[in-house]
Amino acid sequence: MSISDDIQDQDPASFIRDVAASEMHFRKRVSVGILGATGSVGQRLIALLSKHPWFTVSALAASESSAGRLYKDAVQWRINTPLHPDIANLPVQQAIPNLGCDLVFSALDATVAGDIEADFAKKGYPVISCARPHRMDPNVPLVVPEVNFDHLELVKTQQYSEKGMIIAKPNCAVVGLVLALRPLQLEFGIEAIHVVTMQALSGAGFPGVPSLAVFDNIIPYIPTEAERFEIEPYKILGTLKDGSIQAYPLTISSTCSRVPISDGHLQVVSVKLKRKPSREHMIRAFKEFVPYVQELNLPSRCKTPIHYFDEEGYPQPALHRDLESGMAVSVGRLRECPILDYKFVTLSHNTIRGASGGAILLAELLIKKGYVFW
Amino acid sequence: MSISDDIQDQDPASFIRDVAASEMHFRKRVSVGILGATGSVGQRLIALLSKHPWFTVSALAASESSAGRLYKDAVQWRINTPLHPDIANLPVQQAIPNLGCDLVFSALDATVAGDIEADFAKKGYPVISCARPHRMDPNVPLVVPEVNFDHLELVKTQQYSEKGMIIAKPNCAVVGLVLALRPLQLEFGIEAIHVVTMQALSGAGFPGVPSLAVFDNIIPYIPTEAERFEIEPYKILGTLKDGSIQAYPLTISSTCSRVPISDGHLQVVSVKLKRKPSREHMIRAFKEFVPYVQELNLPSRCKTPIHYFDEEGYPQPALHRDLESGMAVSVGRLRECPILDYKFVTLSHNTIRGASGGAILLAELLIKKGYVFW
Amino acid sequence: MSISDDIQDQDPASFIRDVAASEMHFRKRVSVGILGATGSVGQRLIALLSKHPWFTVSALAASESSAGRLYKDAVQWRINTPLHPDIANLPVQQAIPNLGCDLVFSALDATVAGDIEADFAKKGYPVISCARPHRMDPNVPLVVPEVNFDHLELVKTQQYSEKGMIIAKPNCAVVGLVLALRPLQLEFGIEAIHVVTMQALSGAGFPGVPSLAVFDNIIPYIPTEAERFEIEPYKILGTLKDGSIQAYPLTISSTCSRVPISDGHLQVVSVKLKRKPSREHMIRAFKEFVPYVQELNLPSRCKTPIHYFDEEGYPQPALHRDLESGMAVSVGRLRECPILDYKFVTLSHNTIRGASGGAILLAELLIKKGYVFW
Amino acid sequence: MSISDDIQDQDPASFIRDVAASEMHFRKRVSVGILGATGSVGQRLIALLSKHPWFTVSALAASESSAGRLYKDAVQWRINTPLHPDIANLPVQQAIPNLGCDLVFSALDATVAGDIEADFAKKGYPVISCARPHRMDPNVPLVVPEVNFDHLELVKTQQYSEKGMIIAKPNCAVVGLVLALRPLQLEFGIEAIHVVTMQALSGAGFPGVPSLAVFDNIIPYIPTEAERFEIEPYKILGTLKDGSIQAYPLTISSTCSRVPISDGHLQVVSVKLKRKPSREHMIRAFKEFVPYVQELNLPSRCKTPIHYFDEEGYPQPALHRDLESGMAVSVGRLRECPILDYKFVTLSHNTIRGASGGAILLAELLIKKGYVFW
Repeated sequence: MSISDDIQDQDPASFIRDVAASEMHFRKRVSVGILGATGSVGQRLIALLSKHPWFTVSALAASESSAGRLYKDAVQWRINTPLHPDIANLPVQQAIPNLGCDLVFSALDATVAGDIEADFAKKGYPVISCARPHRMDPNVPLVVPEVNFDHLELVKTQQYSEKGMIIAKPNCAVVGLVLALRPLQLEFGIEAIHVVTMQALSGAGFPGVPSLAVFDNIIPYIPTEAERFEIEPYKILGTLKDGSIQAYPLTISSTCSRVPISDGHLQVVSVKLKRKPSREHMIRAFKEFVPYVQELNLPSRCKTPIHYFDEEGYPQPALHRDLESGMAVSVGRLRECPILDYKFVTLSHNTIRGASGGAILLAELLIKKGYVFW
Repeated sequence: MSISDDIQDQDPASFIRDVAASEMHFRKRVSVGILGATGSVGQRLIALLSKHPWFTVSALAASESSAGRLYKDAVQWRINTPLHPDIANLPVQQAIPNLGCDLVFSALDATVAGDIEADFAKKGYPVISCARPHRMDPNVPLVVPEVNFDHLELVKTQQYSEKGMIIAKPNCAVVGLVLALRPLQLEFGIEAIHVVTMQALSGAGFPGVPSLAVFDNIIPYIPTEAERFEIEPYKILGTLKDGSIQAYPLTISSTCSRVPISDGHLQVVSVKLKRKPSREHMIRAFKEFVPYVQELNLPSRCKTPIHYFDEEGYPQPALHRDLESGMAVSVGRLRECPILDYKFVTLSHNTIRGASGGAILLAELLIKKGYVFW
Repeated sequence: MSISDDIQDQDPASFIRDVAASEMHFRKRVSVGILGATGSVGQRLIALLSKHPWFTVSALAASESSAGRLYKDAVQWRINTPLHPDIANLPVQQAIPNLGCDLVFSALDATVAGDIEADFAKKGYPVISCARPHRMDPNVPLVVPEVNFDHLELVKTQQYSEKGMIIAKPNCAVVGLVLALRPLQLEFGIEAIHVVTMQALSGAGFPGVPSLAVFDNIIPYIPTEAERFEIEPYKILGTLKDGSIQAYPLTISSTCSRVPISDGHLQVVSVKLKRKPSREHMIRAFKEFVPYVQELNLPSRCKTPIHYFDEEGYPQPALHRDLESGMAVSVGRLRECPILDYKFVTLSHNTIRGASGGAILLAELLIKKGYVFW
Repeated sequence: MSISDDIQDQDPASFIRDVAASEMHFRKRVSVGILGATGSVGQRLIALLSKHPWFTVSALAASESSAGRLYKDAVQWRINTPLHPDIANLPVQQAIPNLGCDLVFSALDATVAGDIEADFAKKGYPVISCARPHRMDPNVPLVVPEVNFDHLELVKTQQYSEKGMIIAKPNCAVVGLVLALRPLQLEFGIEAIHVVTMQALSGAGFPGVPSLAVFDNIIPYIPTEAERFEIEPYKILGTLKDGSIQAYPLTISSTCSRVPISDGHLQVVSVKLKRKPSREHMIRAFKEFVPYVQELNLPSRCKTPIHYFDEEGYPQPALHRDLESGMAVSVGRLRECPILDYKFVTLSHNTIRGASGGAILLAELLIKKGYVFW
């Protein structure tokens, strides 16, 4: 089955069966486990999930040094909302696939995530991964729900186990980029993008960047980051055909910088389009972007995935990163580019939309579309 | 007389007479006045000039509210080296052309600089301007000494008075850009540049940006800044022919951002060259750039105007903005650009190389080349 | 009528009539006006009030330059939650007492607040003031609800008009200090306090401190701030007797500093008590502090007004300023002081607990206790 | 021999012989080794020593992981002046006492410094230590040259070897404190001090504090720091009698905080004096403080060790930490304290005066006074 043969011709009706099927399950809550629960993405996941309408955090796993302790004793909680008492008292377990939950989120370090996530999938766990290792696996969908939900069908080609699967969330900066590009792709087609990022400190996790290295400073290089920009967008913006993803043909030039702000990745994007539209048409494309998943009423969805600003000087991290609880992408400073066609600035919250929130939205989509049963 | 008909064929010998002529004058010091002495560029000028081998600050002028007070009482000194006692006790005068000095530096606000600078030039003062209004006047040379010293000849077309003249220093970010571009222009020719800037707080002067506006924030817009990038480089990189500047043909796309660092403008530049060289040739062009003015042994010159870095993650404002007392430009992160030919990162100190230090180097050049007599 | 003759012997029963009386009014919403609506405290008030269960913002007033425009056009909105559309389209009026609302919050600048607030009170408006001028008026209660709600009785001695009155909120840093001191005053009595503050940038309003003045810097002096510490606590901690406040006898030594953080005033407090308790008793006093107003279930109340931390290094602005939506005060680092008796660190959110949130809680208290009828 | 029986009655004449003796040695340079050369204090030492008139860096030692490589390859150079080429090409050796130099500076980590420094002293090396372990050894002088140079005599009681010895520099914040206190001790006697510090990021070394831990934050606790304040000042301000230090009787209450600034420890100090002077007398004591070592014309001395400021809001780290190349201490905000006698703010550069520069001044003193022969 192919959810969509052509991303520009999505028929919502084809999903009705799935939705109806999954509705049945909402009578009981989904129990979830967090792999890498003590790290910064893990903490963010826990903070967001502790008040989630569908999910209940029932299992926490981390490295061996933490395993065996209560979560509150193992974690150095760095979120500015208090740790929920129910989760505080959960024991931290080892990251082996006997957590007894319906679904796991992986916030594991890239050095160990590959094997552990595969182990969980083999034992029947659906794994929503925030980590890097499986993102480019041919059978692993790399999904931003508003951009390429239809790629989820790829899981049917996975061989881990009957119910086990891996679905990956893209790099935290790439998420914001492809979301801003998606309406342009759909309306005009994209030939080339030139992107310069200014990325927040939280993107490096904890402890991440030493304060002395970044205080009053800019580091115009983020290890492994530029290469994400050179591979992930092709897959995310690509087309699912005959059980595999055909990469979207596109030229990308990227430079990634670390700047001294807490949260929010800002990107200066110049874009060459297949059909150059008027400025008004560009604006309309951003403003009227209503991806299919909007109809699903997922708990973590945005009302408006892209907020377009006409005000000069917008968007700004301090003012706009938290829009729609950090799930919206902001776009502004739209101007013609004398070299490519147009240039604009886009901003997204790297640890929410780009990581924890994006992963949760992905899990919601997975359930709503009936990929996960429990 | 034409100092140079062709910037690519400079014959140092043609200057010997000038140099010899100006040497005579070094027996006595040059007395200088500062217009806009209490502002942040004025303070920087004073700090640098207070230990200068040629110049003695003999007159200070500022707005009417400051005039009549001692400088130490009128200024809110914000430089981290103490104010020199001799200058501290100078009276602040009104900015009218009776300062009785050999040369003036103008650090006036753009709103008043135009008329006042012209008044001084008409009364016989050579004016080195850090302000915007006269930069694009057809007869006013817009000069970075290492880039287009030969444009100084333009002053001979000025009609202010026998000895009076205006010479302008470019925008503080443009200075860094054209310096980094100059060896590429000379070696390969430039067709197009795409530049994204991350500019420091001090670029906005004092009080400048409110702390709450920029704390933990990026402002992807600097009023009037982008337009400087769209006009000044054409003139600076242009050719003096028959008493006027022929603009250098070049396509420029720029986006300017304010980031929360104190000093240092960092720019991510992609460049399309007329003749695409090898990477090694690019590096050699940066490393071996020895502009003519190097031979003049001006007190504020760099030993090496462009410092090229191979290290990943270099240059960085905190580590490299102070190279050669803030007068050197740093270049690094050189990579091929899939859209244009090459991309790199350049950094320069905005208040030193980009403003006060650049203006002083310009004054030194003016004297050394015999344009100013006293 | 006296709400309380003795602050240490509060009888909740005496309030039952008031509560019952005020309950009647909750069937209709309270319409409120904001004086100084475009400033930073005004914006915070609007952001908090736009989702308040009792209050509806119906009128906005600001300086003459803003009056006559729609609020969305007059304000430079700097809050990271979007401006509510209903409020965005309200017209900005002049700050004269014909706003037609039940109550006004004043976020006016100290230079004009004195007269305008008095004008409003004379015309029958209850005024909740965030400004300085009336704070030390003998008839104006200076109130932190958890500390000295009983001082509200002072309004009965005001002569503005039948229904008009002024109630003041203390200085934003003093609020946090007296809240942390209150349980110690009640349990042990206080003889002397030595306080060193590290105050956030937002305490200076907007534009406030220039970024260059405070970037990578500490300014160990805040104009007019130290004097607030030397007068306001005496009144707030004082006793209402025979229609006037008897100052609490106490020696205070304070030093106030501005530090480069966005929000949250941190204070290092050493305290000499009348009866020196054990450390355990000190901790218990903080932890078990349940002020009378807790019983009133006001919408903006804290569950726990003081959060006590045993962890070394707590409290910290980034982690704890937002506790209980920014309304809670944090206390930690409790140690014996070799000079006074004990020392500790306290932290509170200056623009929420210290300003807008504190003012709203005060308004809620005023209504709940039946001081305002409408 | 006792250099001084009474610190208040120093007779410079008694040093004449020493000075004369040491003058002889200045014909040849002193070769020095750096232990812990790759760390942040080690780098600062190298930067300062690379242009020193007496010292030549001839040996570098670091941990085993660095040993065997050239310094330029082993170090991540983080100083904003370029690494001197002669030093760049020195090999990094193991920290064992066969470096073949006249003197070593130890910038070793506290976990290993104790044993290694003792090893060097036993092998005949004079060791100037920036590390903690030996500071409170009864025979190790803990010296700030302007405060207690006479304590150097203690080395004569050391038993390491004929020429080997250990001299320690105090904690980086304590250095600034005792320097500001010294004139008060001499003039009025001190009974008690209450100090609250705001300490810069560089005080934690590199990598030190993670940026996310301190960004937009204050950490009101620095591990092991408060205890330095509770022990070191007693020794430094104490009196050498009969071959041992008698602690200065004094009550100290301290709270140490980490604030987000790069360099400069600011301290708010309240002080109880034995004889309370007038404010003018206090100011005079600060201004007229001319310690004995001033006469020695050491290369790294201050002209004025304490800069006193009357301006409100001074001293500030960004403006004053670099006074006298970072070696001067600033004092300001002097006011009467209602609890103790006076309060003031003091500021010193933690990595220069408080560490590398202070250690070099100490080495200069050692040589000038004839303790080190070579």
